[in-house]
Amino acid sequence: MPAGGSLRPMNDHRPTVGVVGAGQLARMCWQAAIGLDIDLRVLAARAGDAAARVMPHPLIGDPDDPAALAKLARVCEVVTLDHELVDVATLMDLEAAGHAIHPGGETLRFAQDKAHQRHRFAAAGLPVPPHTVVTSLGDAERFAADHGWPVVLKRPRGGYDGRGVWPVADAADLPRSWCDATGQTRAAAGAAGDGTGDAAGDDEMLVEQGVDITAEVAVLLARRPGGQRVTAPLIETVQRDGMLRELVVPARVPPHVHTTAMDLAARVADLVGVVGVCAVELFWDGRDVLVNEIAVRPHNCGHWTIDGASTSQFENHLRAVLDWPLGSMDPTHRAVCSVNVVGLDDTAWPQSQLATALQTHDVHVHLYGKQPRAGRKLGHVTATDDDIDVARDHAHAAAERLMTPVHVH
Amino acid sequence: MPAGGSLRPMNDHRPTVGVVGAGQLARMCWQAAIGLDIDLRVLAARAGDAAARVMPHPLIGDPDDPAALAKLARVCEVVTLDHELVDVATLMDLEAAGHAIHPGGETLRFAQDKAHQRHRFAAAGLPVPPHTVVTSLGDAERFAADHGWPVVLKRPRGGYDGRGVWPVADAADLPRSWCDATGQTRAAAGAAGDGTGDAAGDDEMLVEQGVDITAEVAVLLARRPGGQRVTAPLIETVQRDGMLRELVVPARVPPHVHTTAMDLAARVADLVGVVGVCAVELFWDGRDVLVNEIAVRPHNCGHWTIDGASTSQFENHLRAVLDWPLGSMDPTHRAVCSVNVVGLDDTAWPQSQLATALQTHDVHVHLYGKQPRAGRKLGHVTATDDDIDVARDHAHAAAERLMTPVHVH
Repeated sequence: MPAGGSLRPMNDHRPTVGVVGAGQLARMCWQAAIGLDIDLRVLAARAGDAAARVMPHPLIGDPDDPAALAKLARVCEVVTLDHELVDVATLMDLEAAGHAIHPGGETLRFAQDKAHQRHRFAAAGLPVPPHTVVTSLGDAERFAADHGWPVVLKRPRGGYDGRGVWPVADAADLPRSWCDATGQTRAAAGAAGDGTGDAAGDDEMLVEQGVDITAEVAVLLARRPGGQRVTAPLIETVQRDGMLRELVVPARVPPHVHTTAMDLAARVADLVGVVGVCAVELFWDGRDVLVNEIAVRPHNCGHWTIDGASTSQFENHLRAVLDWPLGSMDPTHRAVCSVNVVGLDDTAWPQSQLATALQTHDVHVHLYGKQPRAGRKLGHVTATDDDIDVARDHAHAAAERLMTPVHVH
Repeated sequence: MPAGGSLRPMNDHRPTVGVVGAGQLARMCWQAAIGLDIDLRVLAARAGDAAARVMPHPLIGDPDDPAALAKLARVCEVVTLDHELVDVATLMDLEAAGHAIHPGGETLRFAQDKAHQRHRFAAAGLPVPPHTVVTSLGDAERFAADHGWPVVLKRPRGGYDGRGVWPVADAADLPRSWCDATGQTRAAAGAAGDGTGDAAGDDEMLVEQGVDITAEVAVLLARRPGGQRVTAPLIETVQRDGMLRELVVPARVPPHVHTTAMDLAARVADLVGVVGVCAVELFWDGRDVLVNEIAVRPHNCGHWTIDGASTSQFENHLRAVLDWPLGSMDPTHRAVCSVNVVGLDDTAWPQSQLATALQTHDVHVHLYGKQPRAGRKLGHVTATDDDIDVARDHAHAAAERLMTPVHVH
């Protein structure tokens, strides 16, 4: 399969999967890979990255460097991604050279470019919020006048965890948000050089009608190259300040929301052609279910599967990109809740509170080995129970303890 | 806590646990350690050992070398064991120097020396098979004449997986078994040099009355330094040729066997003073429950806990030796079955059959990354279901596929 030579010894029958990036997703993939005796090779920007520090021989290199990606692809059967900030054109070149890249460049473009995603989803008849791409404040004002306030400004590319999204309450609020958004987009484009250049110009901005959200939900699925897929039950995602903070499984929404969301996610996955795990995030406004956005890799919304489902998203991601049969992601308990452990400041290490947090009944703690920083995801806690309120109480209690600021210098 | 200096950076708040040995138990501990951000340092005899090959910076050294053990202890808060073939006196020296060693030397001696174990258990009033230590064929004959046939000869030290145990059907069979047993014991003593010398002389042999076994069962528990413990449900262990091949949870034995076995195991754990996970193996002869032997580390009988219990034995082992609160080992399903993947010959790699084995519904495959060899444990498969017959069918089907001899040179 590899177009180039392999560095593996002849008598080693382990498949080798390459991962671009070495954050917590690659780290949790590595735990799953050890069980299946899959050799995971990460391309890490730094030796201290979450995944790189727990494995032998990480490749250290710049994920924006085509030569580093090509080197990774040469020593692996298949290459996958820890994050979505990888150059699409480089991936497509590697695919053209015969390397298996999952997700591939075409699929990744959906996740990278929110304008492209919205246009293609709308064209396929998928329900999405009313939206348009504008290049001037005046165009944004006209969209709002046509569709009503509030609106949401989004940078088409590069945002995550609430960054790159500006909710705009009314006309008075718009000019400042516009200025912030376009300023940040220009700064990001400058920092990235020309490596990430594509169709979206610097001043292009996605503007959408604000959705009056009753609940946010997500569908997690794993999909093989032939289209076979396995889907987890509907996940309720609770956000705070634009960042995912809590998962509730199954989602506390009416049955028709479950079925509609599952149906929409299946259509999205096929349209996008994803291979591996993907997460489709959706809004429910109390009446309609709308597609918000897609992530084409293991996702925070699936972290509960490690302790609360038959097969974790990380194992299924590896199985999907290797085109192996997938495992069920049915839940093992009637109720599962995961809560993110988010950093308070530079010195509050959750590690120092582990023994206290583990006093909570039946919680599963996952720490990513990252230097604490305000607002940084440092870990998550999953609790299972027959009763969702009990599971939520336990997960929050343990996560709060891990976030209690014991300052250790 | 460490008596010597620490090699860890000041700002790294991860606890460091040392493991003597780098087999599959250390490997599965490492998967659990990554989740809790515990830094595991293994002392591996070879860089290619199962655990050493999946972690950064294993210490390579001889577990029989006191200097190598001392070096490990200096860089860790606590030292634990992957296998029981560690010199007791060396461990006791390290304990005397202030290092935390779990299990400690006194505890380890129970697991290493079957004669010591039998004597101490019997003295404490625990039910064990009638037995004695003999130094001559004549004494063994007299024991059998007194207690009846069959009997079992056991080397007091160094046996595992059926090695070091000779069932003897009748008087005609005894001389050859005696010759085999004492010959092997002398050979082992010669190979080990004087490093493992202790009270058991070369020609001492444990002789026991044979038990007419209806079922073999095991109790898996984790115990903290203060004596707090968590116990898994009773495990039925199915042996073939003296090697553990299959686990059935919960054990298919009458309720009184469950309660008696749990009670006996709790007494054994307290007597032995184990810290960490231990496995107490017991016989049920259809009437009485007898204590067979104890292992003072994570054990094959607990492998099902990774996929079938709230907390795995490997996570609980780490939590126990660090004196952290323990997690429940309640099963997540009504029935769990694990089957060992055992090597057929040097060239049949289970890795080459993974995609086929994973076609089986809801099985969890664990491969240890070891070179295949006839009779070598290369992995295990766990299946969960509401019905134990279904779980057994699935686990056996997948394990059989992994053991199908696809010869890859």
